[in-house]
Amino acid sequence: MNLTPNVVEVRPVEQRKAGQRSTREWQALDAAHHFHPFSDAAALKQQGSRVITHADGVYLWDSDGNKIFDAMSGLWCVNIGYGREELAEAAYRQMRELPFYNTFFKTTHPPVVELSALLAEIAPDGFNHVFYTNSGSEGNDTVIRMVRHYWASLGQPQKKTIISRINGYHGSTIGGASLGGMTYMHEQGDLPIPGIAHIEQPYWYANGGDLTPEEYGLKAACELEKKILELGVENVAAFIGEPVQGAGGIIIPPATYWPEIQRICDQYGILLIADEVICGFGRTGHWFGSQYYGIRPHLMTIAKGLSSGYQPIGGVLVHDTVAKVIAESGDFNHGFTYSGHPVACAVAAENLRILKNERIIDKMREDVMPYAHQLWHNAFDDHPLVDDVRTLGFFFAVTLVEDKARRQRFANGGELALRCRDICFQNNLVMRATGDSMISAPPLTMTRAEAREFVSLAKKCLDQLARELGRL
Amino acid sequence: MNLTPNVVEVRPVEQRKAGQRSTREWQALDAAHHFHPFSDAAALKQQGSRVITHADGVYLWDSDGNKIFDAMSGLWCVNIGYGREELAEAAYRQMRELPFYNTFFKTTHPPVVELSALLAEIAPDGFNHVFYTNSGSEGNDTVIRMVRHYWASLGQPQKKTIISRINGYHGSTIGGASLGGMTYMHEQGDLPIPGIAHIEQPYWYANGGDLTPEEYGLKAACELEKKILELGVENVAAFIGEPVQGAGGIIIPPATYWPEIQRICDQYGILLIADEVICGFGRTGHWFGSQYYGIRPHLMTIAKGLSSGYQPIGGVLVHDTVAKVIAESGDFNHGFTYSGHPVACAVAAENLRILKNERIIDKMREDVMPYAHQLWHNAFDDHPLVDDVRTLGFFFAVTLVEDKARRQRFANGGELALRCRDICFQNNLVMRATGDSMISAPPLTMTRAEAREFVSLAKKCLDQLARELGRL
Repeated sequence: MNLTPNVVEVRPVEQRKAGQRSTREWQALDAAHHFHPFSDAAALKQQGSRVITHADGVYLWDSDGNKIFDAMSGLWCVNIGYGREELAEAAYRQMRELPFYNTFFKTTHPPVVELSALLAEIAPDGFNHVFYTNSGSEGNDTVIRMVRHYWASLGQPQKKTIISRINGYHGSTIGGASLGGMTYMHEQGDLPIPGIAHIEQPYWYANGGDLTPEEYGLKAACELEKKILELGVENVAAFIGEPVQGAGGIIIPPATYWPEIQRICDQYGILLIADEVICGFGRTGHWFGSQYYGIRPHLMTIAKGLSSGYQPIGGVLVHDTVAKVIAESGDFNHGFTYSGHPVACAVAAENLRILKNERIIDKMREDVMPYAHQLWHNAFDDHPLVDDVRTLGFFFAVTLVEDKARRQRFANGGELALRCRDICFQNNLVMRATGDSMISAPPLTMTRAEAREFVSLAKKCLDQLARELGRL
Repeated sequence: MNLTPNVVEVRPVEQRKAGQRSTREWQALDAAHHFHPFSDAAALKQQGSRVITHADGVYLWDSDGNKIFDAMSGLWCVNIGYGREELAEAAYRQMRELPFYNTFFKTTHPPVVELSALLAEIAPDGFNHVFYTNSGSEGNDTVIRMVRHYWASLGQPQKKTIISRINGYHGSTIGGASLGGMTYMHEQGDLPIPGIAHIEQPYWYANGGDLTPEEYGLKAACELEKKILELGVENVAAFIGEPVQGAGGIIIPPATYWPEIQRICDQYGILLIADEVICGFGRTGHWFGSQYYGIRPHLMTIAKGLSSGYQPIGGVLVHDTVAKVIAESGDFNHGFTYSGHPVACAVAAENLRILKNERIIDKMREDVMPYAHQLWHNAFDDHPLVDDVRTLGFFFAVTLVEDKARRQRFANGGELALRCRDICFQNNLVMRATGDSMISAPPLTMTRAEAREFVSLAKKCLDQLARELGRL
C-alpha cells in the first residue's frame, strides 16, 4: 500500500529543516506516515491536513500564512494562551538539569515535589495528595484501579462497579472509554469492560420534556439512586461525572442536579469522582468545576489545563479520606514510567504559578467572562438557527435547531454542525461540532477585543450556515 | 490525616526556588503530597525518598551531593544518556513556536510529521504508519482497540482475544495491566478484563527442567499453539510479547522460541504484536528487538527510548497490512489529546537523529557491548551467589541462586534481591531487583571505562550480599 498522495516529491528529512517544507509536502508526508486520532484516514488523505506551524495568545498560524482564532484552546487545554516564554524556559532549564528520573523506587526529584505542593495549595481543602499520569485517560484509568483498591482494602472487594453517564467523556484507554458514555467508542474494541454502568446525562434541552430545568435536574440525578438500588449499594464503588460535560457538547446541568447527586452519594456512601480534565484550572471561572457547583468529591481527575497543554501530564487529586486508606494498604501496584516526569512537572508548576500570580482566573471571571457571555447571548438568543444558547465560565455553545418554539432539532443536525465547523475553519475560526451543537472554549487570557472578534466570527459563520439553509 | 513527617518546617513554595530546599524539606513535602507509583506510601514516608536533582551521561546526583551510576537508564529509557543539550534546545524551540496543537480535526503540525517520517525510515520494511500515545501503557491499550477494530473491519468481530504471557509487562492502564501477566497487578482493580489469555513465559532457568534450552524454547512456544486451539482460532486476534521480557526480569528466550512463535502466528493467521517499549531504539544492539530475533510483527508498541525519556511519548508502529484495513474502515474512534504532542515529537525526533547520526547503536553493538558482556561474565560466571548470568545488547542480569549445581533458587530470593538493591543504592549504583534477579540496562552511550566501573560496582554489591549470607 502506498498512502502518499500522487505527485508530490518529498525530499529526505536530512536535507530540510522543520518549517522549510511546502504545505503540500507536509500533507504528503503526513498522509504517508501519521495515523491521526479520531479520524478517517482515507478521507483525510484525500483532503489533506491543515498544517499548524505557529501560535501566539489566542491565535494560530498555518503553513499558508493564515491567522486563525483558536476558540477551542487547542483541545480545551491551552488555558494560559499560546506563546508564554516562561514555560519554554522552564522546560529548557529542567531538561538540562534532569530530563528524566522515575519515582518508583524510593526516589523523587524537585519538580515533582514542587508541583505536588502547589497542587495541594490550590486544590480544595482535604486534597493533599496527587498521583501522576501522562493524560486524563490514564487519570481515569487510575481512578478505576484506585477506587476498587480502596474498597478492597476496606474489606469490600465486591464493591467495584462505577456509575457514569451517557455521553460523558473520560478518555480513550480501555478504562477511560468504558467509563465514558460514547457509543461510537464502545463499538470499537469490545467496550465497555464489566463493572461500569451508565445513566442518563443531565441534558434538559434534549431530555427535559415538559419539566422545568429544575424539575428535570432532580429527575436526572435520581437516575443515580435508581441505578444504585438496581445494582445493590454493596456492589457500587463510585459515581463519576464531569461537572460540565465537555466533549459531550458542553452540557450544563440544571442547578438542582449536582446538589442532588451529592446527596445521593453521601446517603449511600459511595465515592464521588469529579472528572476535572476540562473543567479544572479555571475553565468555569474557578480553579475547579467542583468549586463552581459546590461538589465535594473524593477524587478529581486532572490534565489539560494543568500544563495548559504545553506538556503531556495528568493525574488524580486524592482526598485525605481515600489517601489514608491507600497509604495504609501496602503497595499500590500501579504507575507509569513518566508519572511525575520532571520536565512536564516543571512546566505545569510554572503554568500554575502564572495562573495564580497573574490572577488570570479571577480576572477572567470578574471581567471578560460576563462581557463575553453578554456578547454571546446578544449574538445568538434571537438567531433563527440556534437555541439552548449557553455560557458558563469560558464555555460557549449553541444548538442548531429547526423549530425553536417546539424545541425541535434537525434530523441531520450532526451533518449541519460539521458543515458549520468547516465554515468556521474557512473563516479562520476554530470551533468544534459535537452532535448538533457548536461549542467553544477559548483561552482564559482572551481580551475584551478578542472576545468581540470571537463572537463576531462565530456569528458570521452561523449566519452563513443559516443563509445556506434559507433561514436568513 | 497528616502524612508530613514530624518536625521539619517547610517554607512556602514562593519563598524558595527549586534546588534551594534541604533534603529533609524535599522529603517532607514529597511525603505530604506526592503519591509514588508502585510504592507503599506509609513505608516510604517513614524512610524518606532519595532526591535526585541532576544528571549527566550515565550519572545521577542526589540532593546530598552523591554521584550515582544509573545502570537502569532511568527506567529503561534514557538510551542516549543524560545531559544532551540538543534535546533541551529542541524542546525550547518547539515550545516557543507551537507548544501544543491537536491532530484530531484535519490538522497536523511539522514536528509530528517529521517524527513520523523519521520513524518510517528507521522501522523495518512495511512499517510506514505511526499512531501516537503518551506512554507504552497507552500504546498497548491502543493495540487492543486496534486489533479488535481490525478484525471487526474484516467481518470477524468475535476474533478478539489476545494471547499474552505470564510475567509479561505491558503497562499499567486497565488494558495494559490486563495484557501483562503480573498477578500482583491483576489483584488490584479486578483484572484482567475479558478477552485476554496468558501462557507460560519462555524462562528456561525456572521452567526448563531437564530439557535443553533449545528443546524448552520449542515447548514454551508450543503453549501458544495449544492456547489457540483451546480458544478456537476464530476467537483469537493476536499474540503479544516483548522480544526480551524486561520488567519480568530480563528473561531472554532460548534461540528456538521466537522462530516457532512466528511459525505459529503465520500458520493460524493471527496478528503478531511486538512490545518494543523496552527493546526498541537500540537496547538489543539493533533498532528493534524484532530485528534481533528476525520477528515479523504486524504492530510494534514503542515508548521509552523513542525520546530517551526526555519527554512522555509513545505510540504504535503499524504495518501496511494492518494500516490499509484501518485506513479503509472509516473513523477509528480512538486517540489522546496529547497524541503527537509537538514538543514531545520535536524532542523524540532530535533523539532519533542523534542515535542515527552518531551511530550510537552500531558503535555500542560493535564495541562496548561485547566488552561489557565479557566483563559481566568474568565477574559473575563463577560467583558463589548467582547463576543464569545473562547478557544481550545492553541488558545485564543474574539470578540469586542457593545451589548452582541443582539450579535451586532461594526460598526468600525476592527479599534477598531487595536487600541487594539497597546495597547497590548505598554504593551509589542503581540496579533493579525483580523477583530473585538483579537486572540492569545502562545507557547505550556507556563507555568502556564506565562499563568497568559499572561491573565492578555490581560485583562489589553482590560480594557484599554474599558475605552477609556467609558465602564469601
